[in-house]
Amino acid sequence: MRGRFITLEGGEGAGKSTQVALLADGLRAAGQTVVTTREPGGTPGAEAIRTLLVQGAADRWQPLTEALLVNAARADHVARLIRPALEAGKWVLCDRYVDSTFAYQGGQDVSDADLTALHRIATGDLWPDLTLWFDLPVEQGLERAAARQPGTARFEAQPLDYHQRLAGRFADRAAAEPARWRRIDATQSLDAVSAAVWAVVSPLLGSD
Amino acid sequence: MRGRFITLEGGEGAGKSTQVALLADGLRAAGQTVVTTREPGGTPGAEAIRTLLVQGAADRWQPLTEALLVNAARADHVARLIRPALEAGKWVLCDRYVDSTFAYQGGQDVSDADLTALHRIATGDLWPDLTLWFDLPVEQGLERAAARQPGTARFEAQPLDYHQRLAGRFADRAAAEPARWRRIDATQSLDAVSAAVWAVVSPLLGSD
Repeated sequence: MRGRFITLEGGEGAGKSTQVALLADGLRAAGQTVVTTREPGGTPGAEAIRTLLVQGAADRWQPLTEALLVNAARADHVARLIRPALEAGKWVLCDRYVDSTFAYQGGQDVSDADLTALHRIATGDLWPDLTLWFDLPVEQGLERAAARQPGTARFEAQPLDYHQRLAGRFADRAAAEPARWRRIDATQSLDAVSAAVWAVVSPLLGSD
Repeated sequence: MRGRFITLEGGEGAGKSTQVALLADGLRAAGQTVVTTREPGGTPGAEAIRTLLVQGAADRWQPLTEALLVNAARADHVARLIRPALEAGKWVLCDRYVDSTFAYQGGQDVSDADLTALHRIATGDLWPDLTLWFDLPVEQGLERAAARQPGTARFEAQPLDYHQRLAGRFADRAAAEPARWRRIDATQSLDAVSAAVWAVVSPLLGSD
Protein backbone atom coordinates (compact mmCIF):
# COMPACT_ATOMS: atom_id res chain seq x y z
CA MET A 1 0.00 0.00 0.00
CA ARG A 2 1.21 3.47 -0.86
CA GLY A 3 1.73 5.75 2.13
CA ARG A 4 -0.20 8.97 2.68
CA PHE A 5 1.20 12.38 1.87
CA ILE A 6 -0.04 15.09 4.25
CA THR A 7 1.04 18.73 4.11
CA LEU A 8 0.62 21.46 6.74
CA GLU A 9 0.15 25.01 5.48
CA GLY A 10 -0.41 28.48 6.93
CA GLY A 11 1.33 31.73 7.79
CA GLU A 12 4.23 32.32 10.17
CA GLY A 13 3.78 31.25 13.80
CA ALA A 14 0.73 29.02 13.23
CA GLY A 15 2.27 26.08 15.12
CA LYS A 16 2.76 23.76 12.14
CA SER A 17 6.13 22.31 13.17
CA THR A 18 4.86 21.42 16.65
CA GLN A 19 1.79 19.75 15.16
CA VAL A 20 3.90 17.77 12.67
CA ALA A 21 5.72 16.16 15.60
CA LEU A 22 2.51 15.44 17.55
CA LEU A 23 0.75 13.97 14.52
CA ALA A 24 3.76 11.76 13.79
CA ASP A 25 3.61 10.44 17.37
CA GLY A 26 -0.06 9.59 16.96
CA LEU A 27 0.44 7.81 13.64
CA ARG A 28 3.39 5.81 14.97
CA ALA A 29 1.32 4.76 17.97
CA ALA A 30 -1.24 3.53 15.41
CA GLY A 31 1.43 1.34 13.80
CA GLN A 32 2.47 3.47 10.81
CA THR A 33 5.98 4.29 9.64
CA VAL A 34 6.20 8.08 9.42
CA VAL A 35 8.67 10.49 7.84
CA THR A 36 8.47 14.12 8.99
CA THR A 37 10.02 16.83 6.88
CA ARG A 38 9.73 20.49 5.90
CA GLU A 39 10.04 22.86 2.99
CA PRO A 40 11.98 24.52 1.67
CA GLY A 41 14.48 21.84 2.67
CA GLY A 42 14.19 18.25 3.82
CA THR A 43 17.28 16.87 2.02
CA PRO A 44 20.90 18.10 2.16
CA GLY A 45 20.65 19.75 -1.27
CA ALA A 46 17.28 21.34 -0.55
CA GLU A 47 18.51 22.63 2.82
CA ALA A 48 21.45 24.32 1.06
CA ILE A 49 18.95 26.03 -1.25
CA ARG A 50 16.80 26.96 1.78
CA THR A 51 19.78 28.79 3.29
CA LEU A 52 19.93 30.98 0.17
CA LEU A 53 16.19 31.67 0.43
CA VAL A 54 15.79 32.61 4.10
CA GLN A 55 18.93 34.74 4.52
CA GLY A 56 19.69 38.24 3.29
CA ALA A 57 17.64 41.37 2.68
CA ALA A 58 13.87 41.17 2.06
CA ASP A 59 14.41 42.16 -1.60
CA ARG A 60 17.36 39.81 -2.19
CA TRP A 61 15.27 37.67 -4.58
CA GLN A 62 12.45 38.64 -6.90
CA PRO A 63 9.33 36.44 -6.54
CA LEU A 64 10.08 34.65 -9.83
CA THR A 65 13.63 33.73 -8.76
CA GLU A 66 12.27 32.62 -5.39
CA ALA A 67 9.70 30.41 -7.11
CA LEU A 68 12.41 28.74 -9.22
CA LEU A 69 14.67 28.21 -6.19
CA VAL A 70 11.81 26.73 -4.16
CA ASN A 71 10.98 24.39 -7.04
CA ALA A 72 14.64 23.33 -7.34
CA ALA A 73 14.65 22.46 -3.64
CA ARG A 74 11.32 20.64 -4.06
CA ALA A 75 12.61 18.58 -7.01
CA ASP A 76 15.48 17.30 -4.86
CA HIS A 77 13.18 16.72 -1.88
CA VAL A 78 10.55 14.80 -3.86
CA ALA A 79 13.03 12.69 -5.84
CA ARG A 80 15.27 11.76 -2.93
CA LEU A 81 12.95 11.63 0.08
CA ILE A 82 9.18 12.07 -0.42
CA ARG A 83 8.55 9.79 -3.41
CA PRO A 84 10.80 6.93 -2.20
CA ALA A 85 9.13 7.09 1.25
CA LEU A 86 5.61 6.97 -0.23
CA GLU A 87 6.57 4.09 -2.52
CA ALA A 88 7.89 2.21 0.53
CA GLY A 89 4.44 2.58 2.14
CA LYS A 90 5.45 5.26 4.65
CA TRP A 91 3.42 8.29 5.68
CA VAL A 92 5.03 11.62 4.86
CA LEU A 93 4.16 14.72 6.92
CA CYS A 94 5.55 17.89 5.36
CA ASP A 95 5.62 21.36 6.97
CA ARG A 96 4.83 23.51 3.88
CA TYR A 97 4.76 22.30 0.26
CA VAL A 98 3.45 23.56 -3.07
CA ASP A 99 0.59 25.62 -1.62
CA SER A 100 3.11 27.80 0.21
CA THR A 101 4.70 28.53 -3.16
CA PHE A 102 1.34 29.69 -4.53
CA ALA A 103 0.81 31.78 -1.37
CA TYR A 104 4.29 33.32 -1.02
CA GLN A 105 5.51 33.64 -4.61
CA GLY A 106 2.26 33.62 -6.58
CA GLY A 107 -0.56 36.01 -7.26
CA GLN A 108 1.48 39.05 -8.24
CA ASP A 109 4.59 38.76 -10.40
CA VAL A 110 4.31 35.03 -11.03
CA SER A 111 1.09 33.67 -12.54
CA ASP A 112 -0.68 30.65 -11.10
CA ALA A 113 -0.43 29.03 -14.54
CA ASP A 114 3.38 29.32 -14.43
CA LEU A 115 3.51 27.97 -10.88
CA THR A 116 1.34 25.03 -11.92
CA ALA A 117 3.70 24.33 -14.85
CA LEU A 118 6.74 24.56 -12.55
CA HIS A 119 5.17 22.12 -10.09
CA ARG A 120 4.46 19.59 -12.84
CA ILE A 121 8.06 19.83 -14.10
CA ALA A 122 9.71 19.82 -10.66
CA THR A 123 7.73 16.99 -9.02
CA GLY A 124 6.16 14.94 -11.80
CA ASP A 125 2.89 16.48 -10.56
CA LEU A 126 2.97 15.05 -7.04
CA TRP A 127 0.14 16.56 -4.95
CA PRO A 128 -0.69 15.85 -1.28
CA ASP A 129 -3.48 13.46 -0.33
CA LEU A 130 -4.52 15.89 2.40
CA THR A 131 -3.57 19.47 3.26
CA LEU A 132 -4.15 20.93 6.72
CA TRP A 133 -4.57 24.70 6.75
CA PHE A 134 -3.58 26.25 10.10
CA ASP A 135 -5.71 29.37 10.13
CA LEU A 136 -4.63 32.15 12.50
CA PRO A 137 -5.04 35.96 12.37
CA VAL A 138 -1.92 37.46 10.81
CA GLU A 139 -0.98 39.72 13.77
CA GLN A 140 -1.20 36.80 16.20
CA GLY A 141 1.03 34.62 14.00
CA LEU A 142 3.68 37.31 13.62
CA GLU A 143 3.69 37.88 17.39
CA ARG A 144 4.31 34.17 17.97
CA ALA A 145 6.95 34.00 15.24
CA ALA A 146 8.82 36.99 16.69
CA ALA A 147 9.09 35.19 20.04
CA ARG A 148 11.06 32.25 18.61
CA GLN A 149 14.45 31.91 16.93
CA PRO A 150 14.79 34.10 13.82
CA GLY A 151 15.24 31.25 11.34
CA THR A 152 13.19 32.72 8.50
CA ALA A 153 13.76 36.38 9.29
CA ARG A 154 13.77 37.36 5.61
CA PHE A 155 10.07 36.46 5.34
CA GLU A 156 9.01 37.70 8.75
CA ALA A 157 10.57 41.09 7.92
CA GLN A 158 8.07 41.66 5.10
CA PRO A 159 5.35 44.30 5.74
CA LEU A 160 2.00 43.37 7.28
CA ASP A 161 0.08 43.60 4.00
CA TYR A 162 2.41 40.95 2.54
CA HIS A 163 1.38 38.52 5.28
CA GLN A 164 -2.29 39.49 4.93
CA ARG A 165 -2.17 38.84 1.20
CA LEU A 166 -0.72 35.37 1.71
CA ALA A 167 -3.33 34.51 4.36
CA GLY A 168 -5.92 35.34 1.72
CA ARG A 169 -4.14 33.10 -0.79
CA PHE A 170 -4.36 30.09 1.57
CA ALA A 171 -8.06 30.80 2.14
CA ASP A 172 -8.69 31.01 -1.61
CA ARG A 173 -6.87 27.77 -2.34
CA ALA A 174 -8.67 25.91 0.46
CA ALA A 175 -12.02 27.13 -0.90
CA ALA A 176 -11.13 26.13 -4.45
CA GLU A 177 -10.14 22.56 -3.61
CA PRO A 178 -12.26 21.47 -0.62
CA ALA A 179 -11.68 17.72 -1.12
CA ARG A 180 -7.97 18.07 -0.38
CA TRP A 181 -8.03 20.85 2.24
CA ARG A 182 -9.12 20.88 5.88
CA ARG A 183 -9.14 24.09 7.92
CA ILE A 184 -7.73 23.88 11.46
CA ASP A 185 -8.55 26.72 13.87
CA ALA A 186 -5.03 27.55 15.10
CA THR A 187 -6.18 30.10 17.69
CA GLN A 188 -7.03 27.17 20.01
CA SER A 189 -4.75 25.66 22.67
CA LEU A 190 -2.00 23.31 21.49
CA ASP A 191 -3.96 20.28 22.74
CA ALA A 192 -7.18 21.39 21.08
CA VAL A 193 -5.36 21.95 17.77
CA SER A 194 -3.73 18.54 18.06
CA ALA A 195 -7.13 16.92 18.67
CA ALA A 196 -8.60 18.73 15.67
CA VAL A 197 -5.75 17.45 13.49
CA TRP A 198 -6.23 13.89 14.71
CA ALA A 199 -9.97 14.05 14.04
CA VAL A 200 -9.20 14.86 10.41
CA VAL A 201 -6.28 12.48 9.85
CA SER A 202 -7.26 9.35 11.79
CA PRO A 203 -10.08 8.35 9.40
CA LEU A 204 -7.39 7.83 6.74
CA LEU A 205 -5.88 5.01 8.80
CA GLY A 206 -8.66 2.62 7.89
CA SER A 207 -8.83 3.45 4.17
CA ASP A 208 -6.60 2.01 1.44
CA MET B 1 18.30 51.42 -30.38
CA ARG B 2 18.17 48.17 -28.45
CA GLY B 3 21.60 46.61 -27.82
CA ARG B 4 22.65 43.24 -29.20
CA PHE B 5 22.62 40.08 -27.10
CA ILE B 6 25.41 37.65 -28.06
CA THR B 7 26.06 34.34 -26.32
CA LEU B 8 29.15 32.11 -26.50
CA GLU B 9 28.59 28.38 -26.17
CA GLY B 10 30.66 25.18 -26.24
CA GLY B 11 32.26 22.55 -24.02
CA GLU B 12 34.88 23.01 -21.31
CA GLY B 13 38.20 24.61 -22.30
CA ALA B 14 36.98 26.03 -25.63
CA GLY B 15 38.36 29.51 -24.86
CA LYS B 16 35.02 31.30 -24.52
CA SER B 17 35.94 33.57 -21.60
CA THR B 18 39.11 34.80 -23.37
CA GLN B 19 37.12 35.53 -26.50
CA VAL B 20 34.41 37.40 -24.57
CA ALA B 21 37.08 39.84 -23.39
CA LEU B 22 38.65 40.25 -26.86
CA LEU B 23 35.28 40.75 -28.54
CA ALA B 24 34.33 43.37 -25.93
CA ASP B 25 37.56 45.26 -26.69
CA GLY B 26 36.75 45.26 -30.39
CA LEU B 27 33.18 46.46 -29.89
CA ARG B 28 34.27 49.22 -27.51
CA ALA B 29 36.86 50.37 -30.05
CA ALA B 30 33.96 50.56 -32.50
CA GLY B 31 32.11 52.91 -30.13
CA GLN B 32 29.67 50.53 -28.42
CA THR B 33 28.90 50.23 -24.71
CA VAL B 34 29.46 46.60 -23.78
CA VAL B 35 28.55 44.48 -20.76
CA THR B 36 30.39 41.16 -20.40
CA THR B 37 28.96 38.48 -18.17
CA ARG B 38 28.71 34.72 -17.68
CA GLU B 39 26.34 31.95 -16.63
CA PRO B 40 25.52 30.51 -14.32
CA GLY B 41 26.14 33.76 -12.47
CA GLY B 42 26.52 37.38 -13.51
CA THR B 43 24.69 39.00 -10.58
CA PRO B 44 25.29 38.58 -6.82
CA GLY B 45 22.27 36.30 -6.41
CA ALA B 46 23.07 34.23 -9.48
CA GLU B 47 26.70 33.86 -8.40
CA ALA B 48 25.51 32.50 -5.03
CA ILE B 49 23.42 29.92 -6.92
CA ARG B 50 26.44 29.16 -9.16
CA THR B 51 28.46 28.27 -6.08
CA LEU B 52 25.86 25.61 -5.21
CA LEU B 53 26.02 24.25 -8.76
CA VAL B 54 29.75 23.93 -9.33
CA GLN B 55 30.80 22.61 -5.93
CA GLY B 56 30.36 19.17 -4.40
CA ALA B 57 30.25 15.63 -5.76
CA ALA B 58 29.38 14.95 -9.41
CA ASP B 59 26.03 13.42 -8.34
CA ARG B 60 25.16 16.17 -5.85
CA TRP B 61 22.27 17.37 -8.04
CA GLN B 62 20.02 15.46 -10.39
CA PRO B 63 19.72 17.01 -13.89
CA LEU B 64 16.19 18.28 -13.15
CA THR B 65 17.28 20.06 -9.95
CA GLU B 66 20.26 21.48 -11.83
CA ALA B 67 17.97 22.78 -14.57
CA LEU B 68 15.76 24.54 -12.01
CA LEU B 69 18.76 26.06 -10.20
CA VAL B 70 20.26 27.28 -13.48
CA ASN B 71 16.93 28.85 -14.43
CA ALA B 72 16.65 30.53 -11.01
CA ALA B 73 20.10 32.07 -11.55
CA ARG B 74 19.11 33.07 -15.09
CA ALA B 75 15.90 34.75 -13.90
CA ASP B 76 17.92 36.97 -11.56
CA HIS B 77 20.58 37.62 -14.21
CA VAL B 78 18.10 38.57 -16.95
CA ALA B 79 15.89 40.74 -14.70
CA ARG B 80 18.69 42.61 -12.97
CA LEU B 81 21.47 42.82 -15.58
CA ILE B 82 20.82 41.56 -19.13
CA ARG B 83 17.40 43.08 -19.87
CA PRO B 84 18.18 46.50 -18.31
CA ALA B 85 21.47 46.64 -20.27
CA LEU B 86 19.78 45.78 -23.58
CA GLU B 87 17.03 48.32 -22.94
CA ALA B 88 19.72 50.96 -22.31
CA GLY B 89 21.15 50.21 -25.76
CA LYS B 90 24.21 48.27 -24.54
CA TRP B 91 25.67 45.14 -26.09
CA VAL B 92 25.63 42.11 -23.80
CA LEU B 93 28.21 39.33 -24.29
CA CYS B 94 27.40 36.28 -22.19
CA ASP B 95 29.66 33.25 -21.64
CA ARG B 96 27.02 30.45 -21.71
CA TYR B 97 23.24 30.95 -21.64
CA VAL B 98 20.14 28.87 -22.35
CA ASP B 99 21.79 26.57 -24.91
CA SER B 100 24.18 25.31 -22.22
CA THR B 101 21.13 24.32 -20.20
CA PHE B 102 19.81 22.28 -23.13
CA ALA B 103 23.28 20.73 -23.58
CA TYR B 104 24.15 20.02 -19.94
CA GLN B 105 20.79 19.29 -18.32
CA GLY B 106 18.66 18.29 -21.31
CA GLY B 107 18.27 15.31 -23.54
CA GLN B 108 18.05 12.63 -20.89
CA ASP B 109 16.08 13.13 -17.68
CA VAL B 110 14.71 16.55 -18.59
CA SER B 111 12.75 16.92 -21.83
CA ASP B 112 13.45 19.75 -24.27
CA ALA B 113 9.78 20.73 -23.96
CA ASP B 114 10.17 21.22 -20.20
CA LEU B 115 13.40 23.21 -20.68
CA THR B 116 11.64 25.41 -23.24
CA ALA B 117 8.80 26.01 -20.76
CA LEU B 118 11.29 26.82 -17.98
CA HIS B 119 13.11 29.30 -20.21
CA ARG B 120 9.88 31.09 -21.09
CA ILE B 121 8.92 31.36 -17.41
CA ALA B 122 12.40 32.33 -16.14
CA THR B 123 13.31 34.96 -18.77
CA GLY B 124 10.08 36.11 -20.40
CA ASP B 125 11.39 34.20 -23.44
CA LEU B 126 14.55 36.24 -23.98
CA TRP B 127 16.70 34.60 -26.68
CA PRO B 128 20.10 35.79 -27.99
CA ASP B 129 20.39 37.70 -31.26
CA LEU B 130 23.48 35.64 -32.11
CA THR B 131 25.08 32.55 -30.61
CA LEU B 132 28.74 31.66 -31.24
CA TRP B 133 29.47 27.94 -30.97
CA PHE B 134 33.11 27.27 -30.05
CA ASP B 135 33.63 23.84 -31.55
CA LEU B 136 36.56 21.81 -30.21
CA PRO B 137 37.17 18.04 -29.89
CA VAL B 138 36.13 16.94 -26.40
CA GLU B 139 39.52 15.49 -25.36
CA GLN B 140 41.31 18.70 -26.36
CA GLY B 141 38.89 20.86 -24.38
CA LEU B 142 39.19 18.73 -21.23
CA GLU B 143 43.00 18.88 -21.49
CA ARG B 144 42.87 22.68 -21.63
CA ALA B 145 40.32 22.89 -18.81
CA ALA B 146 42.46 20.64 -16.58
CA ALA B 147 45.39 23.05 -16.97
CA ARG B 148 43.54 26.00 -15.45
CA GLN B 149 42.05 26.72 -12.03
CA PRO B 150 39.46 24.13 -11.00
CA GLY B 151 36.48 26.49 -10.81
CA THR B 152 33.87 24.15 -12.27
CA ALA B 153 35.41 20.88 -11.10
CA ARG B 154 32.01 19.24 -10.56
CA PHE B 155 31.33 19.31 -14.30
CA GLU B 156 34.85 18.53 -15.46
CA ALA B 157 34.82 15.43 -13.22
CA GLN B 158 32.01 13.89 -15.29
CA PRO B 159 32.97 10.91 -17.52
CA LEU B 160 34.09 11.40 -21.13
CA ASP B 161 30.81 10.20 -22.64
CA TYR B 162 29.01 12.95 -20.69
CA HIS B 163 31.14 15.57 -22.44
CA GLN B 164 30.75 13.84 -25.80
CA ARG B 165 26.98 13.81 -25.43
CA LEU B 166 26.90 17.53 -24.70
CA ALA B 167 29.15 18.32 -27.69
CA GLY B 168 26.57 16.51 -29.81
CA ARG B 169 23.79 18.57 -28.25
CA PHE B 170 25.49 21.85 -29.24
CA ALA B 171 25.94 20.54 -32.79
CA ASP B 172 22.27 19.52 -32.99
CA ARG B 173 21.04 22.88 -31.73
CA ALA B 174 23.29 24.81 -34.12
CA ALA B 175 21.99 22.72 -37.02
CA ALA B 176 18.37 23.21 -35.98
CA GLU B 177 18.54 27.00 -35.76
CA PRO B 178 21.12 28.17 -38.34
CA ALA B 179 19.93 31.80 -38.41
CA ARG B 180 20.96 32.35 -34.79
CA TRP B 181 24.07 30.14 -34.59
CA ARG B 182 27.57 30.56 -36.03
CA ARG B 183 30.20 27.82 -35.66
CA ILE B 184 33.70 28.97 -34.67
CA ASP B 185 36.58 26.50 -35.20
CA ALA B 186 38.17 26.63 -31.74
CA THR B 187 41.14 24.42 -32.65
CA GLN B 188 42.78 27.48 -34.25
CA SER B 189 45.21 29.89 -32.57
CA LEU B 190 43.77 32.49 -30.20
CA ASP B 191 44.28 35.24 -32.80
CA ALA B 192 42.67 33.22 -35.57
CA VAL B 193 39.65 32.44 -33.37
CA SER B 194 39.35 36.12 -32.44
CA ALA B 195 39.44 37.10 -36.11
CA ALA B 196 36.77 34.51 -36.93
CA VAL B 197 34.55 35.90 -34.15
CA TRP B 198 35.00 39.46 -35.39
CA ALA B 199 34.15 38.44 -38.95
CA VAL B 200 30.81 37.14 -37.68
CA VAL B 201 29.97 39.92 -35.21
CA SER B 202 31.18 43.11 -36.95
CA PRO B 203 28.46 43.06 -39.65
CA LEU B 204 25.92 43.60 -36.83
CA LEU B 205 27.47 47.02 -36.09
CA GLY B 206 25.90 48.58 -39.14
CA SER B 207 22.42 47.06 -38.78
CA ASP B 208 19.61 48.38 -36.58
